[in-house]
Amino acid sequence: MKVIYLGLIGFGTIGSGVVKLLQEEKENLARKLGFELRLKKIADIDLGRPRPVSVPQDILCQDAMMIVNDPEIDIVIELMGGYEPARSIVKAALRNKKHVVTANKALLAEYGDEIWHIANEEGCELGFEASVGGTIPIIKTVRESLIANDISHLMAIMNGTTNYILSQMTDERKEFDQVLKEAQKLGFAEADPSFDIDGKDTAHKLAIVLGLAYGGSVKTMDFYCEGIREISHQDIEFALELGYRIKLLAIAFKRGSRIEARIHPTMIPSDHLLASVNSNYNAFYLVGSASGPIFLFGQGAGMMPTASAVLGDVVDIAKKLKGEGGKRVGLRDPEVHVLRPLDLVPFDEICTNYYFRFMAVDRAGVLSKISGILGNHNISIASVIQKGRKKDGAVPIVMVTHEARERDVQDALEKIEQLDVVHERVKVIRIEDERLK
Amino acid sequence: MKVIYLGLIGFGTIGSGVVKLLQEEKENLARKLGFELRLKKIADIDLGRPRPVSVPQDILCQDAMMIVNDPEIDIVIELMGGYEPARSIVKAALRNKKHVVTANKALLAEYGDEIWHIANEEGCELGFEASVGGTIPIIKTVRESLIANDISHLMAIMNGTTNYILSQMTDERKEFDQVLKEAQKLGFAEADPSFDIDGKDTAHKLAIVLGLAYGGSVKTMDFYCEGIREISHQDIEFALELGYRIKLLAIAFKRGSRIEARIHPTMIPSDHLLASVNSNYNAFYLVGSASGPIFLFGQGAGMMPTASAVLGDVVDIAKKLKGEGGKRVGLRDPEVHVLRPLDLVPFDEICTNYYFRFMAVDRAGVLSKISGILGNHNISIASVIQKGRKKDGAVPIVMVTHEARERDVQDALEKIEQLDVVHERVKVIRIEDERLK
Repeated sequence: MKVIYLGLIGFGTIGSGVVKLLQEEKENLARKLGFELRLKKIADIDLGRPRPVSVPQDILCQDAMMIVNDPEIDIVIELMGGYEPARSIVKAALRNKKHVVTANKALLAEYGDEIWHIANEEGCELGFEASVGGTIPIIKTVRESLIANDISHLMAIMNGTTNYILSQMTDERKEFDQVLKEAQKLGFAEADPSFDIDGKDTAHKLAIVLGLAYGGSVKTMDFYCEGIREISHQDIEFALELGYRIKLLAIAFKRGSRIEARIHPTMIPSDHLLASVNSNYNAFYLVGSASGPIFLFGQGAGMMPTASAVLGDVVDIAKKLKGEGGKRVGLRDPEVHVLRPLDLVPFDEICTNYYFRFMAVDRAGVLSKISGILGNHNISIASVIQKGRKKDGAVPIVMVTHEARERDVQDALEKIEQLDVVHERVKVIRIEDERLK
Repeated sequence: MKVIYLGLIGFGTIGSGVVKLLQEEKENLARKLGFELRLKKIADIDLGRPRPVSVPQDILCQDAMMIVNDPEIDIVIELMGGYEPARSIVKAALRNKKHVVTANKALLAEYGDEIWHIANEEGCELGFEASVGGTIPIIKTVRESLIANDISHLMAIMNGTTNYILSQMTDERKEFDQVLKEAQKLGFAEADPSFDIDGKDTAHKLAIVLGLAYGGSVKTMDFYCEGIREISHQDIEFALELGYRIKLLAIAFKRGSRIEARIHPTMIPSDHLLASVNSNYNAFYLVGSASGPIFLFGQGAGMMPTASAVLGDVVDIAKKLKGEGGKRVGLRDPEVHVLRPLDLVPFDEICTNYYFRFMAVDRAGVLSKISGILGNHNISIASVIQKGRKKDGAVPIVMVTHEARERDVQDALEKIEQLDVVHERVKVIRIEDERLK
């Protein structure tokens, strides 16, 4: 099996996530791709600190240039963060004709033009899905899926820390300072939180997306950026009363031939999808000229979500390096020509929660008869609604069950429908609840 | 400039959308890509019917084989729909080493294995983003962005017609039959609606996504599929009372080594993102092993949204055909090496709605003073909240404005802050409302 060699520079949280994912998904990736992704070297100045993954000692080094100058390495993954030495290392890697995948939004926002220029000159790829929106495929969506669209608007929640703080202020009715302290304790905010709460992190990400969506150069100081320090609980309450929620939004849209771009706390209608983005999630609402509105939501940061985005980019580049006759993807196992059928669970073995509506005569003992049969079939009731009193005819009895098995449900309902106090067929609607949390 | 030749088979609604988008975005696409996409031939059996776009007569033909056998055509776009002759034509195109882009979910759900097998043998690409979720990049997300993930769950609203009907039944408190009739009048439901409302359309789409996410072969008759005919308004009311909404969901997840897959009306918690997908929109909620939850939302059908997805696939394939030194994308104009700065609107020229909170003494004439100054600066008030009565000290006066200009707002607030009845700085929060609709 062919091998694509990777070098990782920066072995912190995200770097550890990338190593973990490469280890865990090694066989799956090889099967899907038809070639192996092999991590050949990892560089980090601090090799001693404890990490959640273990790697062979001989692939570790302290000098990033050992990766940049390794002729066998095809793709360099830069996860150091910050401007220097990341900038010099990325440039050197591109000059050595290595493709680069990075999550470094500060670097791209500040020096993206220079870096893209070198990548173009050298014919190298630059993957940066992980730099904006973490695991959300916003870069791919804008530059690939929506390529035949003008992006007429973009409104995005791009920073998890500020969204967490605003969500807590709204839901727990607390003031900013208190929530910030709690967020710092929980690890949702840095000891020095100014980068997040003053909107600078959002500004870096908006600069990257603006360049992508509107094809030009832009610096973070070129647009207005206001953070969330001045938001008080009183204003959140007034916003709710007016039908709004307050979110830190990055906003961009076309106004004639010019682009309007700004970042500030924004009141948005409570029933909009963006208003329901809580906790530390990120989300992008964009409107394409042909596509209409698109909304993308997910984890904007974190070890494994970011690692997932980094590997998405690595695989995209690796597939192209391998040529693969123009084939895009491990849609199906490339070696397997007769597909095995998926092993599906038979429907009567599914387990879920159920809603039942019985139409039953309103008479003593009916509820006990029905619940007795359900109990005999291992179906336990979570809640009951019984309403209305009728002398004659049937009234609805509604029950929601705990998790039960389809076969048991069918057997029980067959018996219940034979009761002379039960009219009509029982209405069954399945419930998904736990799996959506 | 190099040219990639396209052939279009099927000149109906979506086909017209593709032609329109190719015409409108001709220059933009050429600039982004560095090559031209040229529609060389269009085949349709009915060349006479009126269409919303005009094309040169000499590119029209009635025989799809003229496209399949044209040696110059690189990419065939199949938008006929249905099983035959689409199946034979797609197979013939692949055998002639043409890449194929299709929106034909029925064909892929029923004959996908056969078609993918031929595409693999011939080293051809098969693009089918438009077949599931319309403009939503679900295919790309599953097979590219989440390649390093196991998809642990998928819950999706894949059919716009049924979602429209259920939304109307919920919001307008109407019964199924009435809403269906209205939907048919509005063009949201077919004259023969069974394909949508009995879940068959959803089943085709789920079969495609299952094959993609879990890498195997599956037929629509292998999993349970129940439509929405039996949903009554009474059950929707009980669902709301229990904290749920009813949606037609396609559900899939891993249970050990097996896959559980099913389609049925499902109660989901009212505060879940999927519950807020109204009208004819589609949405996908998926959980990747590394990514965590991802939610994607957009138009699942329609002329331009579907055309946008078709062209996304066409461009992906075309870029690979052109080689482009491994470069993925028209991130920036490929010919331009010094990027022009984006032309940004200065912040004091932005126009939006505003929330103001004034802290003012509770005295007659204060409101008139404030609103007078606002009026003098062309700022008109949409709503006011004034509460609480205090003998001494300041009370909040909250105002929401109609659209106003930032510079006018700053000028007005400077004057208002000089009033001796106004204490503290005025709190300003900008509102986005109209642009989110």
